Parts: sequence; structure tokens; C-alpha cells
Amino acid sequence: MAEATGGKRSLLERCKERWRETRLDHFSWANPTYFKQRYFVCDEHWRRGGSIFFYVGNEADVTLYLNNTGLMWELAPRYSAMLVFAEHRYYGQSKPFPPKELRANMAWLTSEQAMADYATLLWDLKKEIGDQDVPVIGFGGSYGGMLGTWFRQKYPHLIDGVIAGSAPIWTYKGEEPPYDAGSFAKIVTQDASPEGGSVAACAGNVREAWRVLARFGKTKEGRSTINRAMSLCDASRAETEGDALALRDWAAGAWDYLAMGNYPYPSVYIVNGAQPPLPAFPVRVACEHLSDLELGGEELLAAMARAVGVFYNHTRDLDCYSFKQGPNPETDEDADFWGYQYCTEQFQIFSKDGVHDMFWEEPFRTKDAIAQCKESWGVEPRPLWATIEWGGKRLEAASNIVFSNGLLDPWSGGGVLHNISEARDLVAVVIPEGAHHLDLMFSHPLDPPSVTQARRFEEHYIAKWIRQARDRAAAGPQLGAPQHAAVAQL
Amino acid sequence: MAEATGGKRSLLERCKERWRETRLDHFSWANPTYFKQRYFVCDEHWRRGGSIFFYVGNEADVTLYLNNTGLMWELAPRYSAMLVFAEHRYYGQSKPFPPKELRANMAWLTSEQAMADYATLLWDLKKEIGDQDVPVIGFGGSYGGMLGTWFRQKYPHLIDGVIAGSAPIWTYKGEEPPYDAGSFAKIVTQDASPEGGSVAACAGNVREAWRVLARFGKTKEGRSTINRAMSLCDASRAETEGDALALRDWAAGAWDYLAMGNYPYPSVYIVNGAQPPLPAFPVRVACEHLSDLELGGEELLAAMARAVGVFYNHTRDLDCYSFKQGPNPETDEDADFWGYQYCTEQFQIFSKDGVHDMFWEEPFRTKDAIAQCKESWGVEPRPLWATIEWGGKRLEAASNIVFSNGLLDPWSGGGVLHNISEARDLVAVVIPEGAHHLDLMFSHPLDPPSVTQARRFEEHYIAKWIRQARDRAAAGPQLGAPQHAAVAQL
Repeated sequence: MAEATGGKRSLLERCKERWRETRLDHFSWANPTYFKQRYFVCDEHWRRGGSIFFYVGNEADVTLYLNNTGLMWELAPRYSAMLVFAEHRYYGQSKPFPPKELRANMAWLTSEQAMADYATLLWDLKKEIGDQDVPVIGFGGSYGGMLGTWFRQKYPHLIDGVIAGSAPIWTYKGEEPPYDAGSFAKIVTQDASPEGGSVAACAGNVREAWRVLARFGKTKEGRSTINRAMSLCDASRAETEGDALALRDWAAGAWDYLAMGNYPYPSVYIVNGAQPPLPAFPVRVACEHLSDLELGGEELLAAMARAVGVFYNHTRDLDCYSFKQGPNPETDEDADFWGYQYCTEQFQIFSKDGVHDMFWEEPFRTKDAIAQCKESWGVEPRPLWATIEWGGKRLEAASNIVFSNGLLDPWSGGGVLHNISEARDLVAVVIPEGAHHLDLMFSHPLDPPSVTQARRFEEHYIAKWIRQARDRAAAGPQLGAPQHAAVAQL
Repeated sequence: MAEATGGKRSLLERCKERWRETRLDHFSWANPTYFKQRYFVCDEHWRRGGSIFFYVGNEADVTLYLNNTGLMWELAPRYSAMLVFAEHRYYGQSKPFPPKELRANMAWLTSEQAMADYATLLWDLKKEIGDQDVPVIGFGGSYGGMLGTWFRQKYPHLIDGVIAGSAPIWTYKGEEPPYDAGSFAKIVTQDASPEGGSVAACAGNVREAWRVLARFGKTKEGRSTINRAMSLCDASRAETEGDALALRDWAAGAWDYLAMGNYPYPSVYIVNGAQPPLPAFPVRVACEHLSDLELGGEELLAAMARAVGVFYNHTRDLDCYSFKQGPNPETDEDADFWGYQYCTEQFQIFSKDGVHDMFWEEPFRTKDAIAQCKESWGVEPRPLWATIEWGGKRLEAASNIVFSNGLLDPWSGGGVLHNISEARDLVAVVIPEGAHHLDLMFSHPLDPPSVTQARRFEEHYIAKWIRQARDRAAAGPQLGAPQHAAVAQL
């Protein structure tokens, strides 16, 4: 199946690209303007009486999700489902402003506005189909899984259930009990350790490499060694101690992405669809470059450069590295815009300690993070807003959400790993061998059994929610007798 | 009880007036400014381990609700409840802009923004109390009952249940089955008919009076008769045919308010707290002036003027009427601002036919209503937004709401009169002899038994929701075993 349908072109050709006028601001009348939002409709399996499978778009061009969310494609025939992939405002081609004005007009890039876009889109789609009761099942991975969760919480009348893949909804301040801000770095480190299938020396060498970088970064001669050992491009040499720290952040970022994309087969997903794919289990591959316990100094830095090259040079066409660039321009823009969301509502907390993880000591300081947001975007985050708006761990009034998490995925530390309520179909499924929402991908011969089982688990609920929605519609409004107070029964 | 606590001064003295900084715009970063929101805390019965009773403020100075929501006051001792009365932005003293700038800066007067104000207020209160699990029960009447309903839908993690009095949540376009836009006028007419306890001739005379007004309004001589018969002030004479129509609207408005305020005892509630009160069953009192079947022409208009005077001249200090004014300036401002909300999100639909009601034929025309909104406020309503955002009749995913409606209340035609789900505590109680959220008022010797029973019904659920909240907190997070996919059980 993966071979037959996973090709980018073939899937896009099976869909209609559509555009709709959407309000820039759904929650005030200060800017009553509209912008064009993009979405795709893929209806080859759709028939009247079927369902809508709705991808709750997140922070990338929506074609990335269209091309990779195999679960939706594979289940579509069985449920006569129309696939709809909605693009998140500001990402992909759904830009509310011309390119030159965009970065100065970010204020309407919020999750609530995006969900209101989706609410109006679903309303219009149901009307267009002429079936107000069509069951709608949401799918989303990562931030898309968070949006799916919140969308089911806030708009349950529009969506009947949600598969929330790798949704780190519990990574915010104000959680009770509090979120372990160090969990992300710890899980990246586990991936680079024998328990993640990596060579024994890897995590230790990575940790040592930061020390070498810091030491060498202090002197001109040291920086010259860094530049040489790590193959930095002329235009992107470490000229100052600050550069050496920026280089460290850039290199560490590769490990974060490699861990998220630590799939059991080659995949382009985590490099935003750019070919060729990362290798299978890319953390293990990167770690191979750091297998020698004796590595040190310049040699260690050179090995680190080769390791992070598994990510940054997956295309194998770079002669040198720039620590100011990601693996491709699309990823850079998406990360930049996500940075704005981080600096406003999505104030997720992260820390490292260099002991339980292979990084360096960097406690989370709210003040510093806020100051940096002011500097880079001119905005001040509202640190508690996500928890106030979406409820943190007090999800018990919600219903019909499957939370899935792969334990290789560093985001799983902030995800829902336990059932919240079986009675209300608020259930969790854990995929020990899975990276970032592996279950949402196309089936693959190298899939571990746990992901196949997770997909079956998800399908069970999808089928149930579709039945529920149809049964409810068939029964009509379930109104009891009027409770006249004079005869009100308790 | 009413006599002891219903006096305005004494209740206010039992509360602390407080102010808080609230974001003008919770859902974008375009206007990162704050304003001062007012609320009252009345904590004489509060003790640790008790509850919060939260009045979800609507379109008036919050002291009106503080002084009239007797149900909260009367139940407070039994539940060791802290009473909190939150003022809705733009109303009362919670003005985000100075008076002269306010009407030009209305864009942030939306229900979602108001609910976000309440969400942050509740978050902060729980933190201040030091009890994250304190049960919170919401109370709201009319638009406050709608806000309460929507608040429980969108923020169930902050509020454990809501008593929604006379909340006409089903008065919007897009309802399925559609809303009967004529129901409001029909119920006003019922109140002015024998089935509402009024004299037999009333509704017919009212209907005839509009015809006389229209006929007399066409000529100069006729308008002169109108001015004399209806005691219009010099500055507010009917000089044109248009004036005669505006006068008609003004007179009809009195019947709407009298029906809402058709309580079994004297009350100042529907005149915004202005003394002296309207009489008991004020529709019946107004109808007394129209009891003579033989009335016609000038006599009929004079009788109509006396009838609407029950509302507009309840203070008995007017020598003449102005059809440009309501009963007092506060009511005028509130109605003006509610007009803005009507012209944006709260696009409730109303029609009259002059056959099933005692008014004139006036079908609802969306286009005309939109044009009028553009003219008066420069904004364009989004007619379907309320239904898209709050779900119309698809409330089945919600929980813990009691909907109460009095059948004398014209808003009951758009309210929830049947249980939606007994399993999920989405229940309705109907008070045949009740006007606009009579059940939320103080107990009174003239209460019909049905309202006493309705309050018992409501208390049953309040007690249950408080128990639920405390039990949940005591049990801690109800997390089941992790569902490892390899062993996931369906």
C-alpha cells in the first residue's frame, strides 16, 4: 500500500485543491477582513451515507499531511469517507497577507482562530454535501493532534471523534501535577542510548561534544578548529563565542528532529517531505558516527558534524554547513512561524540538565523566555493561557478522543499515556517502538506489530463513533418529556 | 427572606467590589492592551471546603444581578458558598475605553471575549483561594444563561455545572429544526390574553391600536391627535409618518418588557433596578387599561398610552412621553450595546404576523436586518456564527446544565423545554406561571408552587455537581493502566 500510494504526486492528483474565504479575526470586529484558506478534498471513496475524515492541519504546508497521513487513506474505502485536509492559517499557501507584510502581521496566528476556520469550513462542507448529520472523524498529529483534541473539546457538535497522534497537550505551565519540562531531552537521550537501539557510546559522546564545543568556542584557535572539524561554510563560521553556542543549539536541534523522525523505515516526513528520506531509525544511524568511546577534541566534533548531517544533509548535496539553516527553507519558515505561536499561546516549557539527558544544564526560566519573545517577535507570551483555555489535565468532560503516543517520540513525555475515561472514550494507546505519530502514517512492511495494533485500536473507535453519529441522527432529537416544575421528578 | 435581603444597599454592603486587569483581546495579539473589569465577591458564608457560586454576568451593571439573584444568596449558607458576580465587559462600569471613545471601539464586545474574561477570573480566584478543586456552580439569566451554557460547553474544566435561567439559546438561524421566529410575539400576546390572566379585550385592542396609529400617522391632523392622545412631549412629537412608526415600535417594546417582567409580585428587575417597582403581573395591569371592547380612535390611543405607561412611567413622574427613550438611561445604554451584539454575533431572529400575535405583519428579512446593522453600527452580522460556534441543538456532548424557563416569558420560545440527556444532566424545568427567570429571584410569599419546585430541582443538581467535583478531586487523576498497543484491549 505504501509503495502504491505514498508517492507525492499520485496522492495530490487524487484530490481537489480548493480555497475559501475565511475571516481573519473570528472573535472581534476590529478587522472585518477575509483571507483565502486552502484545503484539499479527496472524494474517490465518498458516497452519500459515508463519513468525512478531516485532517486538522498544523504548522506546515497541508500537502505534507495529505501525503503522509496514510491512516486516513487506508481507512477511507471501508467507511466511504471523503478525505478533507485543511491547511492551518499562515502556513503553506494559506497566508493572510502578502509575503512582505506577513511577518509584521502575525497577530491572528492563534489556535482559536485556526479552529474557527475549521469550524466554518466543516459547517460549509456539511451544507454543501447536504447531510447535516454526516459523521466527522478528525485526525491530527503533533500540534495537529493538539488542535484535534481542543477542537473536539470546543466544537463537539461539528466533529464526532478525534484520533490525536502524538499530541503533547500536557507540556504547559499550570498543569497539575506539573509537567516534567526535562522529559523531551530525556527521551531524545533514550533514543541515542542502547534502550533506543543505539550504540552504547553515543549519548556520552554527544554530551562530551558540547563540552568540547564550549571550550573551543572560547578562543580564536579553538573556533578555527571548530570551523574545520564541523565543515562550516565560509559565510557561517563560528567567529565568536556566541556563534559557538548558536552552533551548539543548531547541532542539538538535529537530535530533536532525528528522535521525532525515528521511524523503522526511511521517511521524508520529518524533513518536511524533502527527498531523499532520512534512513530507517535515523538516531541509530547518526549514533553510528559516535560509536567510538575514544573520540575527543577535533575528532569528536567531526563525528558530531557527520552525525547531525544525517538530518541536515540528508539530501547529501551539502559541501559545508550553516548553523543558521535547517534542512530546507520550508522547515525554516514553519519553525519560524511556530516560534511566533510559542511566543504567544503555545508556551511549552523545556529544560535540560546534562545529567538525565545528553545535553547541557539549561533550566527553564519563564522570564528569559519571555524576554527572548519580546526581542524576536515583539510579543509577550501568556504562559498560562493554554491551560486556562484548554483545561490541562482536567479533560474529564470531554469525550471521543484516542490519544496515541510512540515512546521513541520525545513529545510523548507531554502526551496522554493513560486512559482518562473508558466510559467517555477518552483513551490512550502507547506504541513502544513508535516515533512521532507513526500510527498516522501509511502501513509499511517494517511496521512493528504495536503500530498495527494501535491502528486497529483506533479503527475500533472510529467505527464506533461513526455508528453513534448515525444512530443519533436516525433517532432524531432525543428530547424527553417537558419537566413541568409542578411535576418535576428528581 | 426577600424583605430582609432584597434591598439594594444591604446586599452591596455584604460584598467586596473588586477590579482586575483583563486583556482587551484574548484571541489575537493585535491589541495587547488591558482594561479593568469589575466583579463582586460576597464571602460571608464562605469557608474552606465550600464552593463558588459564580454569576455569569450579562448585559447590565452587575449590581442588578447581585441584587436580584436571590437563588444564589439563599443557597449560599447551605453550601458554604462564596458568591462571585462578574461584570460583562462594556456594561456597567467595566468599560474598556473612556466614555467618549467607547461607542467607536466596540469591536471587542463579543461573547467569546467575555467568557475568556470569566475563565481567567475563575483561574485567578481558584489560585487565590488555594483550592484548585473548589466546585464552581454557574448561574445566569437570559443572555447570562446563554453565556453560562456556552461557558460550561467551552470551559467545563473551570465550571462544574450551570443553572441557565430563561436562556434562549435556540433563537438563531441555522437551528435544525428551525426556530419559530414568531414565538416571542406569540407569547407576549398570550400574556395579554385570558390564558395569561389578562382581560379578554386586551390583545384585540392592542392589535387595533397599531392600525389606528398607522392610519392617523398618515395625516397631519391624525398625528396631532396621536400627540395629544398619547401625551407626547413637545420635543418628541410625531411629525412624520416615520415618527408614527417609531412610536409604534416604542409602544410595542413596552409589551415585550412587561411580558418578560410579568412576575407575580412587584419587581424592579425588568426596569434595571429603578424604583418604584412594576406592579405584580404588569401585563395584566397594563391590559386593564384596554379592557373596553368599544375602544377606538383617539380613546384607544389614550388607553394604549396609559397601558405602556405601566412600563415607561412606572416611576409615575412623567408628564409626557418620548418615544425616543426607554424607562431610564441605564436601560437605554444597555439596549444600545446589546444592539451592537445583535448586529455582530447575537443575530437572533424575530418576526410578527399580526394574526398569531397582537402586533403587525413583519416577516424577518435577513438582508434588511443586516442593512440596518451596517447603518447603525457600521458592522455586518455573521448570521450563522452563533450556531456554528455554540452548536445550536447539537448539545449532546455537553453536560451538567439545568435549563429553566417560565412560560409567561416570551424568550421561552427559544429555550430548552425538554430534557436533552438525563444521563448527562442536561435537563429542563418549566415553570408554567413564571416570567423571565423567576426561579433565579429571591423567594417571595407570592411565588407560585411551580417556582419553588423548580428551585428544589435546581438545588438537587447543584448538590450533585458539588459532590461530583469533590469526589473527583479526592480520587485524584483517574488514570487507567497505560494501553500499550501490543496488549491494547478493545
